[in-house]
Amino acid sequence: MTIAFIGIGNMGRPMLANLLKREFSAVAYDIAPAALEAAAALGAARAASPAEAAAAGDLVITMLPSSTNVEAAYLGPGGIIVGAAAGKLCIDMSTIDPSTSRRVAAQLNERAIRYIDAPVSGGIGGAAAGTLAIMVGGDAADLAEARPALAAIGSNIIHVGGIGAGEVAKLRNNLISGSALVAVAEAFRIGEAFGVDPQILTDVIAKSSGATWVMEHAHPVPGIVDTAASSRQYAPGFMPDLMAKDLGLAVSAAREKRVPVVVASAVQQVYRMASSHGLGREDFSSVYKFLTPSGDDAPV
Amino acid sequence: MTIAFIGIGNMGRPMLANLLKREFSAVAYDIAPAALEAAAALGAARAASPAEAAAAGDLVITMLPSSTNVEAAYLGPGGIIVGAAAGKLCIDMSTIDPSTSRRVAAQLNERAIRYIDAPVSGGIGGAAAGTLAIMVGGDAADLAEARPALAAIGSNIIHVGGIGAGEVAKLRNNLISGSALVAVAEAFRIGEAFGVDPQILTDVIAKSSGATWVMEHAHPVPGIVDTAASSRQYAPGFMPDLMAKDLGLAVSAAREKRVPVVVASAVQQVYRMASSHGLGREDFSSVYKFLTPSGDDAPV
Amino acid sequence: MTIAFIGIGNMGRPMLANLLKREFSAVAYDIAPAALEAAAALGAARAASPAEAAAAGDLVITMLPSSTNVEAAYLGPGGIIVGAAAGKLCIDMSTIDPSTSRRVAAQLNERAIRYIDAPVSGGIGGAAAGTLAIMVGGDAADLAEARPALAAIGSNIIHVGGIGAGEVAKLRNNLISGSALVAVAEAFRIGEAFGVDPQILTDVIAKSSGATWVMEHAHPVPGIVDTAASSRQYAPGFMPDLMAKDLGLAVSAAREKRVPVVVASAVQQVYRMASSHGLGREDFSSVYKFLTPSGDDAPV
Amino acid sequence: MTIAFIGIGNMGRPMLANLLKREFSAVAYDIAPAALEAAAALGAARAASPAEAAAAGDLVITMLPSSTNVEAAYLGPGGIIVGAAAGKLCIDMSTIDPSTSRRVAAQLNERAIRYIDAPVSGGIGGAAAGTLAIMVGGDAADLAEARPALAAIGSNIIHVGGIGAGEVAKLRNNLISGSALVAVAEAFRIGEAFGVDPQILTDVIAKSSGATWVMEHAHPVPGIVDTAASSRQYAPGFMPDLMAKDLGLAVSAAREKRVPVVVASAVQQVYRMASSHGLGREDFSSVYKFLTPSGDDAPV
Repeated sequence: MTIAFIGIGNMGRPMLANLLKREFSAVAYDIAPAALEAAAALGAARAASPAEAAAAGDLVITMLPSSTNVEAAYLGPGGIIVGAAAGKLCIDMSTIDPSTSRRVAAQLNERAIRYIDAPVSGGIGGAAAGTLAIMVGGDAADLAEARPALAAIGSNIIHVGGIGAGEVAKLRNNLISGSALVAVAEAFRIGEAFGVDPQILTDVIAKSSGATWVMEHAHPVPGIVDTAASSRQYAPGFMPDLMAKDLGLAVSAAREKRVPVVVASAVQQVYRMASSHGLGREDFSSVYKFLTPSGDDAPV
Repeated sequence: MTIAFIGIGNMGRPMLANLLKREFSAVAYDIAPAALEAAAALGAARAASPAEAAAAGDLVITMLPSSTNVEAAYLGPGGIIVGAAAGKLCIDMSTIDPSTSRRVAAQLNERAIRYIDAPVSGGIGGAAAGTLAIMVGGDAADLAEARPALAAIGSNIIHVGGIGAGEVAKLRNNLISGSALVAVAEAFRIGEAFGVDPQILTDVIAKSSGATWVMEHAHPVPGIVDTAASSRQYAPGFMPDLMAKDLGLAVSAAREKRVPVVVASAVQQVYRMASSHGLGREDFSSVYKFLTPSGDDAPV
Repeated sequence: MTIAFIGIGNMGRPMLANLLKREFSAVAYDIAPAALEAAAALGAARAASPAEAAAAGDLVITMLPSSTNVEAAYLGPGGIIVGAAAGKLCIDMSTIDPSTSRRVAAQLNERAIRYIDAPVSGGIGGAAAGTLAIMVGGDAADLAEARPALAAIGSNIIHVGGIGAGEVAKLRNNLISGSALVAVAEAFRIGEAFGVDPQILTDVIAKSSGATWVMEHAHPVPGIVDTAASSRQYAPGFMPDLMAKDLGLAVSAAREKRVPVVVASAVQQVYRMASSHGLGREDFSSVYKFLTPSGDDAPV
Repeated sequence: MTIAFIGIGNMGRPMLANLLKREFSAVAYDIAPAALEAAAALGAARAASPAEAAAAGDLVITMLPSSTNVEAAYLGPGGIIVGAAAGKLCIDMSTIDPSTSRRVAAQLNERAIRYIDAPVSGGIGGAAAGTLAIMVGGDAADLAEARPALAAIGSNIIHVGGIGAGEVAKLRNNLISGSALVAVAEAFRIGEAFGVDPQILTDVIAKSSGATWVMEHAHPVPGIVDTAASSRQYAPGFMPDLMAKDLGLAVSAAREKRVPVVVASAVQQVYRMASSHGLGREDFSSVYKFLTPSGDDAPV
């Protein structure tokens, strides 16, 4: 089975690699020539446009950075909608605005092209290991058809609801993990200032009510968790730029529904500021570096 | 062995009960007559002051709501410092300002009375089950002596560092759990507004980067986790009043050390507002009720 | 000259009244029958739809609560676009998303209907007094034509830039006034808690760097400024619901442009929460009531 | 009349200069030799300690950066309490914790030394021009005696209440001005992103509900207000380090009284972060530089 794989970035590349290690072949497209080269190096054929890839693949997978990119790849000139035959199944694994998912799906459906949203959680580490969590919105029969390919990419595949529900779940998850990470970073900055050993503090919290996935897997203090981005110079992983985007989508969704979101709002701005101050393309745990104390001689 | 147990509130009562179920007897004191009655009903003898309790016990345990109460119980008129013989060991299990811990310890030490700080995590549920996490600051030999009594109260006893370090660890833990809970509450409020089933959303997040102790054990949406406070009308548990206090202590400690704490600050205010709006004595997961959406006809 | 006036709410009614006191006659429309009655009581003719009003008026003015309402009134069934002849000038005085302004303008322009955006500042008091500030986006010649009618409504008419620029200015203004009001409310709540006389505190701040329009004109403490909403049971004035909306639009615009907005985000949530807790239709200065201290026995 | 002037920093220096331009002579002390040199260059005699200065002066004025410094200068070794004769009047013009003011006053009063708190508003510009606002807490008779010296330093002298009330008023003022400045900075950052001319935006807001002292006098965008710090490379003025300190004191006071302070908390953290990121000693309006948008290629 041939997968049309569109979007070969930090996440897309290891996902594609895992597909190619199984029974799948692939035809790839990316707007950046270097990214397309990387796909070719993994063994994928090259396409000249999303349309060409979609025409050649039995199944389409997209993994793109924003709502705008998804809209362009599906509906723009040379887009999937042009190349995909009626009946073809498209899986958008990008994290985007749920309303964009629904709009794209509606336009594809007019040409009898099928679409499900299937955003992932787990970062570059999870993508490399093939252990991503995949949250699916769309028709159960479509998910059944997509499942063999998804199983090559992730280890938890959950059907959340209709079109867009995968995105809703994903954004809620990132609201929590993004908030928890900043809270962890603040806690360890204070602990340090009081001279408490970060390893002991980690052990304590791991057994208490502050236990969180992010401390266990994405600990912001270097040297505590070997596999965490912080222990390799905050190489992503999952970037503050993307966390700012995801939290922005969550806050915007909350606004639309009049839900108060004090923490999500504050956290969105922390990642936005970290991004402005040069950390946008490191790992999201680098907010710890951003939250530096002021100098000792600042009056208090 | 007889324990002088001072402070028989929501937490102190089940802790005392667990001591009495083991090999310990107790002499109790509380400023509130009703609380003292409750202790007597569990089988403890009554004392007329902290001093009298401290004189009668082989070991002193205090479990009080604030720094001011601790200072009064140890150093005020009729305080422990008056009744405790030289060499006696005192264990303060309250959550208070680490600098108060150090000040009280210093004054006791002048009279050769020993002191360790040993705040707990796990809430009323953990107190009842005897499974609290206990974070200890102070001398290792003192902890060794305290350990049998602590083992009746909690299941994880961790030596964090010198005097006050238990408090530092505790406050950092609550910074994380308090922040994570609000993030979880916001996420589920948004999910609801979009019509996503909260049970499915829980299942998704539990297997993703948003997995947290608080969602697993203190889920704010009623009916998802049977043992959570939300499933019994938000009966505490751990109260917003106390969470506001703990986060206030954490933010204040951060200020003293010039550490930026955007999320801790925002979260402190959420619990403070929930407290102002009538939820102060329910469970801290009741912030979910506070974060109600505005009416459908509010313009957006 | 006959004005087609669409939207006869808390703001629209006194604006219409001021037009009718001058040389203008009016034909009015509102989706709510009671509002339309109120317009008739002021002397306006009734129309059965925006289209009918637009056909009858020499100039169209709209004053509506949200982007959705504006879009419906101009472009929906029975909308202005259907009734207005080519060349007619429309003035939208609503506070909405600048991108909606541009989209509506573009569609009207295709039928040679002219459009400017002219949101106002000054609240119900300013509307009643005819002293609103009016921020205009659009063509200078169109503004010249609109100026006589605008001069009946407001006393400061400022041409800010092209279509949408009036909205941008308005939202930035409300970002500042909305933030300043919450800061004032917090300051006076703290002052009260320390027993400082609010009148003296007002006098001090009025001569210092904290001097602000909102303290002078919309003081949140009752009895300090006679003309302020707080001195008449917080009758609006300008409602928390609308402030939450305006700040939401500002935060959303910031997100689109990747601008960090820590204060705007926090303030948006304060008004959103005040709205959820029953204050949405009082004056925005009622956030002071929302920011109540917790009870005296809450531990600190 | 000879003034003992202790604390010759950015604020103290021009205040001392204004005293020396009038009928006053001075004996000065500062812990930093260079600051003391500057005082001598203005014509003040040098003292070797606060005690020595206090002994030589008819009146004592202190202008120090923090509560700790004030406590040391008054009560520490070589402190004012040692050198000042019974009956002498001390005026603390520093911005500090009101509870420190009360504690220092109480200790001085035991030796019959008089004390009032008289913090100022208006920044280095106001200090140079002699137009500071001075908020006084303490006895009216003491203020009457201090008034001639204060009149050389400031142009608005307001008696707010008893000891500490000057500090309460000052901190509330800075809560408002510090919050308003960040709101202004955010508003202009958004305006810029949408291409609105900052001069026109300034004109609009100056006549609307967003009008504030800080926009008029401390406009964060360079080139709009000639006398603003932003128009001279953000040379202070009033520093982010000090604003972070003042807001920290305000938030801490709010915590003590259980008052919710969402905006003050958020703003405190903005100045704290600006300080951490190198702007601590520029003008507080430099938070505008800190609130830089992320790069154009960050996904939204």
